[in-house]
Amino acid sequence: MIRVAIVGYGNIGRAAEQAVKAAPDMELAGIYHHNDCLDCMTADVALVCTPTREVQTFATVLAARGICTVDSFDIHGRIWDLRSAMDTVCKASKTVSVIAAGWDPGSDSMVRALLMALAPKGLTYTNFGPGRSMGHTVAAKAIPGVKNALSMTIPLGTGIHRRMVYIELENGADFRTVEAAILADDYFAHDETHVIAVDSIDALNNVAHGVNLVRNGVSGETHNQRFEFNMAINNPALTGQVIVSCARAAVRLRQRGDYGAKTMIEIAPIDLLPGTTESLVKALV
Amino acid sequence: MIRVAIVGYGNIGRAAEQAVKAAPDMELAGIYHHNDCLDCMTADVALVCTPTREVQTFATVLAARGICTVDSFDIHGRIWDLRSAMDTVCKASKTVSVIAAGWDPGSDSMVRALLMALAPKGLTYTNFGPGRSMGHTVAAKAIPGVKNALSMTIPLGTGIHRRMVYIELENGADFRTVEAAILADDYFAHDETHVIAVDSIDALNNVAHGVNLVRNGVSGETHNQRFEFNMAINNPALTGQVIVSCARAAVRLRQRGDYGAKTMIEIAPIDLLPGTTESLVKALV
Repeated sequence: MIRVAIVGYGNIGRAAEQAVKAAPDMELAGIYHHNDCLDCMTADVALVCTPTREVQTFATVLAARGICTVDSFDIHGRIWDLRSAMDTVCKASKTVSVIAAGWDPGSDSMVRALLMALAPKGLTYTNFGPGRSMGHTVAAKAIPGVKNALSMTIPLGTGIHRRMVYIELENGADFRTVEAAILADDYFAHDETHVIAVDSIDALNNVAHGVNLVRNGVSGETHNQRFEFNMAINNPALTGQVIVSCARAAVRLRQRGDYGAKTMIEIAPIDLLPGTTESLVKALV
Repeated sequence: MIRVAIVGYGNIGRAAEQAVKAAPDMELAGIYHHNDCLDCMTADVALVCTPTREVQTFATVLAARGICTVDSFDIHGRIWDLRSAMDTVCKASKTVSVIAAGWDPGSDSMVRALLMALAPKGLTYTNFGPGRSMGHTVAAKAIPGVKNALSMTIPLGTGIHRRMVYIELENGADFRTVEAAILADDYFAHDETHVIAVDSIDALNNVAHGVNLVRNGVSGETHNQRFEFNMAINNPALTGQVIVSCARAAVRLRQRGDYGAKTMIEIAPIDLLPGTTESLVKALV
């Protein structure tokens, strides 16, 4: 059995706990809140389910002690830097960190890589939603006069998105003033954005999300090869499950002596799954 | 540059040739017809583009001489046996064979494995077509009174398929007799099958094919996670491209000392692609 610890116990940590309990080859080694002392952790792999900006600190401490780590770091532009830093730590302590393990970055990245291999020339568009954007929601909440907010991402195709921004106004706030401030904010100024006043943001609460990932490309000399990947999912449940599947891969890679930091495109799909090579090849190939 | 030889020069061999020529990191080391002597081949990797039943003979000879091989062996029930046999040969000669590298088995297998990791419990359905089924076409051609035939696979969902069998009758053949023989054949008896007489099979010739691969499953404890992968493609062009992308992976695995036979679910997507780890992580993750 793979002994799995969870660090951080928000939406993702709770979903990861469920996925660990459902896995036939894992057992829970403990759940650690941010302020807990991690010194006494004994686990094969730690799931770092903290906010993204705290991931590197926790992952570094754990990997340096030889524990495999998995995180769902999601700032696309800084993934290579995190990989470089964690790679050094992991190689020194002979362990493995799987980074940026969610659905985007994560499983969508694997699909994008596969589609590039199937049709090396062409265009891929990743269309997100409908679903909540955490970054845009936080930006809307920061506008003066906004008591609570929800920014939904709506896919319009070819990687273009509409922002539907639902707001609860503070007492006495003027809707037109707040709307103008949101539309002028850098998070919203470049996209089609609609601002809608509602009585209750809580009444709209829904962790559903989706992706429509499309590639039209060229295989060899043959054009118009068309590929499409769609999903409609519970966002934290999928993220938690991906982290747990990657924990299995981290432990396998370490067993093979393949130390270092890996993104999901560097992992063979079979290593995400429980079971023997023979059973999985017979069932899936 | 990776030096690539092609063995067998039918539809797949020709498509593979185009994909090799389009690859920035490969050069063609030669094209070998079945009867050519392979003894003087010098290549890093050989693409075995022979009929499926001849794959093992050619791949064994080449792998035993230390050349990486890739094939698109497509008899699902015998893939594990081929992998076992090639694994022994490859480990003895310190090389790598990628087997069953096409779109199904092949890239579809990678998608099935990934979806299983995203939602471990649930049902996956692979729906094929519309497109020509080689096995069913050969079965229809073998019926007395059939001069030429084309069996199209039509997806009806949940892995159920309709067979549309187009036939050119021989002079004097009776349509009803031929139709009854086709419907009674073991290839067709278990599916909804329609037989249609046409003047010219050649006039229907089209190498288009498609897949609709659907999974509805459970991530952790959360049900109704929905995933779908679709493609509409030129069949030999995609198969040739997949073989060439897997040739790159075979050479990389050998460079790392990871000898043996691999199916595509045992390959990390990044190894299918040209470029550095840094450039690919930055572009795709």
